[in-house]
Amino acid sequence: MISVDRAELAFQLFEALPTASLATLPRFADYDRTAMDEVLDTAERIAREHFLPHAAALDLDAPRFEGGKVALDDRVGAALAVYREAGFFSAGFDREWGGTQMPGTLRAAASFIFSMANASTAAYPLLTFDAASLIAAFGTGEQKERFLRPMVTGRFFGTLCLTESQAGSSLGDIVTRAGQNEDGSYSISGNKMWVAGGDHDICENIVHLVLAKVPDSPAGPLGTSLFIVPKFLVGEEHAQGERNGVALAGLNHTMGYRGIPNAVLNFGEDEPCRGYLLGKLDNGLAQLLQTANEMRLGVGLEAAALGAAGYRAALRYADERMQGHLPGNWNPDGPPVPIIEHADVRRMLLAQKAAVEGALALILYAAFLVDATRAAPNAEASHDSRLLLDLLTPIAKSWSAKYCCEANSHALQILGGYGYTRDYPVERLYRDNRLNAIREGTHGVHGIDLLGRKVMQENGTGMKVLAARIMADVTLAHAHPELAGHAEDLAAHLAEAVATTGRLGGTVGSDPRRGLANATLYLDMLGDVVIAWMWLRQAMAALRKRATDSSDGDLIDGKLAACRYYFLYELPRARTARTLLDSLDDTALTMKPEWF
Amino acid sequence: MISVDRAELAFQLFEALPTASLATLPRFADYDRTAMDEVLDTAERIAREHFLPHAAALDLDAPRFEGGKVALDDRVGAALAVYREAGFFSAGFDREWGGTQMPGTLRAAASFIFSMANASTAAYPLLTFDAASLIAAFGTGEQKERFLRPMVTGRFFGTLCLTESQAGSSLGDIVTRAGQNEDGSYSISGNKMWVAGGDHDICENIVHLVLAKVPDSPAGPLGTSLFIVPKFLVGEEHAQGERNGVALAGLNHTMGYRGIPNAVLNFGEDEPCRGYLLGKLDNGLAQLLQTANEMRLGVGLEAAALGAAGYRAALRYADERMQGHLPGNWNPDGPPVPIIEHADVRRMLLAQKAAVEGALALILYAAFLVDATRAAPNAEASHDSRLLLDLLTPIAKSWSAKYCCEANSHALQILGGYGYTRDYPVERLYRDNRLNAIREGTHGVHGIDLLGRKVMQENGTGMKVLAARIMADVTLAHAHPELAGHAEDLAAHLAEAVATTGRLGGTVGSDPRRGLANATLYLDMLGDVVIAWMWLRQAMAALRKRATDSSDGDLIDGKLAACRYYFLYELPRARTARTLLDSLDDTALTMKPEWF
Repeated sequence: MISVDRAELAFQLFEALPTASLATLPRFADYDRTAMDEVLDTAERIAREHFLPHAAALDLDAPRFEGGKVALDDRVGAALAVYREAGFFSAGFDREWGGTQMPGTLRAAASFIFSMANASTAAYPLLTFDAASLIAAFGTGEQKERFLRPMVTGRFFGTLCLTESQAGSSLGDIVTRAGQNEDGSYSISGNKMWVAGGDHDICENIVHLVLAKVPDSPAGPLGTSLFIVPKFLVGEEHAQGERNGVALAGLNHTMGYRGIPNAVLNFGEDEPCRGYLLGKLDNGLAQLLQTANEMRLGVGLEAAALGAAGYRAALRYADERMQGHLPGNWNPDGPPVPIIEHADVRRMLLAQKAAVEGALALILYAAFLVDATRAAPNAEASHDSRLLLDLLTPIAKSWSAKYCCEANSHALQILGGYGYTRDYPVERLYRDNRLNAIREGTHGVHGIDLLGRKVMQENGTGMKVLAARIMADVTLAHAHPELAGHAEDLAAHLAEAVATTGRLGGTVGSDPRRGLANATLYLDMLGDVVIAWMWLRQAMAALRKRATDSSDGDLIDGKLAACRYYFLYELPRARTARTLLDSLDDTALTMKPEWF
Repeated sequence: MISVDRAELAFQLFEALPTASLATLPRFADYDRTAMDEVLDTAERIAREHFLPHAAALDLDAPRFEGGKVALDDRVGAALAVYREAGFFSAGFDREWGGTQMPGTLRAAASFIFSMANASTAAYPLLTFDAASLIAAFGTGEQKERFLRPMVTGRFFGTLCLTESQAGSSLGDIVTRAGQNEDGSYSISGNKMWVAGGDHDICENIVHLVLAKVPDSPAGPLGTSLFIVPKFLVGEEHAQGERNGVALAGLNHTMGYRGIPNAVLNFGEDEPCRGYLLGKLDNGLAQLLQTANEMRLGVGLEAAALGAAGYRAALRYADERMQGHLPGNWNPDGPPVPIIEHADVRRMLLAQKAAVEGALALILYAAFLVDATRAAPNAEASHDSRLLLDLLTPIAKSWSAKYCCEANSHALQILGGYGYTRDYPVERLYRDNRLNAIREGTHGVHGIDLLGRKVMQENGTGMKVLAARIMADVTLAHAHPELAGHAEDLAAHLAEAVATTGRLGGTVGSDPRRGLANATLYLDMLGDVVIAWMWLRQAMAALRKRATDSSDGDLIDGKLAACRYYFLYELPRARTARTLLDSLDDTALTMKPEWF
């Protein structure tokens, strides 16, 4: 059974954030609180009835490469048909192209529900959203008509074909080529690796966005361009036309996310492959970066959803499983207790709650920034929010991937031997979630992105905005005596983090290798501080709610306890990390390969 | 290709420890340095030729439950036949029963090699060793003749049938029954869960050691007894006799260690099941505890071996994989660098080296204590060593399981997308190693064992012995100027850990629930300090070697760098943990189930 905690989602959306206020913006006028609740009701029902039932089976019986095609459990396509009917493919897109202009914050909450139920099946539309967003941002009117519109309605799915076997994270080193044809289109040739949802026949067409280089383009990332490459050429009224030269070369056998084919694709190998330039020539990576925030928040959201699914499973098990006796009250004749009575089990549940709800709070906060930015009257009005979003995104993606996977490990541990078997979902969730620190920029790549780029942008303005927003909440928190200690603690951590950032930033300028040597630790450290902020915000929201409303007392107590847990058990490691960061330690940098 | 680092093993055995000196003891007289090297040569050859080749295939094509039997890859039996021929089953047992009296320290090193190559296939003889050790310790002469002798030669394998579906870690709550027959044997009836190697036909007989209760035995752990329950009754000269009433009820489908059947066994359900009391009535758990140290060290060793296999795989990949460019030297036209040039990759390799070699050092140190204890003239002479061993065992098991599994996660991360596929071994090693924090006492159970029992034994004498041995090494380390800082650091950590232990110990006495509420953190904290000691010892051994010998310079530099890494990057978290432990925080304890 799916156990989405709707009270938790409502708290995050409507107490910790003013999501309901988005309806006052013209773009989101259709989405008042009632409409929002209906969206979540529908998502929960479809997730329970159509996504969850085949999640375990899909993992066991993963898509197979048969006769050049992907053989896939029929229930995936059936579930996504229901999803399509309910309008979830069109959530978020402009009405002009068939979208419903659903606020991204709400869309994120709905996606969380689907990914909790079945992360693999839920991944197809998330990838389609990423690809369609790029076309929406950079496509010509004709391209939008031909490709975006049917993606928005869910007739066509989308993929991103970025890296290659030799390139990995280093997208500037791709070798896929695009040569211009006489009609202005391009002929694509090359091989792409790790294409999630790269082939299947559960939709009418697949629109691949392919990163490639044209002849004489500059070396490296500044010489890459994006191309729209449909599996089938598109005829009138989006009818399936001739098969394009995109061939499935094989599937990668992955440890998790086994329900979505992870494909190797060949372009233009046996048959000509036609592509259409998206946006500007040699601007491919820049365009990807412009939409990367939402993509990366999406990965963080999936990580949080997988963590939440494990948390709920562990919680139910801990409530029901009778085992052991309590210290100090040890009586072998007495009945065993539910294992949730054991302090260490509660600690592992608190760790999961802190990670999952902390991550979710940050991702929804960031999604709200996206919505607010999009609805802002002009770029200037949203300037600070965009810088803040740029800075929070690598954290929201990476902290969530790291600690929500750790949460899955705690869930597995609570179930013990049972957790290690396929009789319960927790081992599958653990396997799935391990991917999220690798895809869409590895953990290490995001560390370098954060320290080497994001905190430096515009002379550190993003960091100043972050500090100002945190301090505004610290000030508010001082109004609550029971949060004053946490508020002080957060303020101290923030001040130290700002100082560490300045120190490291200077070194990144003068000696980049040394400055960036511990960038991953910096990412983790700043993430710990940001999540503490999210917990302080949640604790304040809980107290605000308590002041006006006598319901949900358990939820409020739980938020306060989890906040306390986070500040006492998790946040202190940020200080340990800063000591190391401040020392500019170069142990890893100076370690010689032959010493290993 | 298996990549056992023989220089590393030789360093651990013969530089960090005086393993070669064991040959001066009468029991181990056959094992001089040359003989020891030959044992390791043989282990390496057999592991490479017979264990490694089927490791990946065995994971994919796990044992199946077919027609009431286990269908198993033939190569497992074939590999173990070679292992048997080479005499590894008899390693460690007394010559009287067919053993070779191999020192346990050397046996551990050989087991490390086999588990690195194929942890599943290597697990059969490890489990057989555990069961045979119990018979060696508590069996009658007749039982040893009938069961131990053929186990020592590897004709019979062994299992431990301890827990049951409802009991989990709480072995006092088992319900399997044993009723005495007229001939003095017992009739066993009940079901056992999680029996690794519980059924197969790759040996002549399987000797199950079954924990059960006789009628009117006291409730709880003090009312459990151990029974020898062979799969086939044993005839003259160990011939296979009548089938005993042990039936395979099913297999658990586990996330890792998939090559060894994880069985559910029924005893005496359709056919009568005969068992023979091992040792004293109602003394089963006490007997298990007496041999538990070696069993648990074995689990820690497997964890270290899995970590080492991942480390070597990641190291090779990092050396060979060309990808990316270095900060500060960024030239998109230039060739990519081997990823080992990236500081973050080196950091993840150092983390693995620190975990794996730190764990291995501790396990071999403990194994050496076992050897020294066994060869001691009397119990008094080995008293301190036994207390120290009792205290180090939960750490050696649990720290290794936790951090060597984390090492596997780092290995996976270094391989990126490739690491997430079955084309490389790292995802399998990661799945395998996740079990080791669960079996043979979960992580949490060992925390309670350490804080609630081991550090309290004999008024804390074990802790005093530990502190004295660490301080002796600290004193020695001060002779090396480059280690003086680490020595001081370790001494400070030790003093604080002793103080924390005293404080917590008092609370455990007065308010056990509160005192033990953070026992897992205590386990991790003391483990961090003990592993720092192991790194200081390794660094000293490296400098001693350098002073007398110009070879192995890279190994020595690597040890010094890894020691530095450990002290700077890993050890500081112990201080953070102590702050929390000293506060006697009860956040987890007071968290109410309904608040989650």
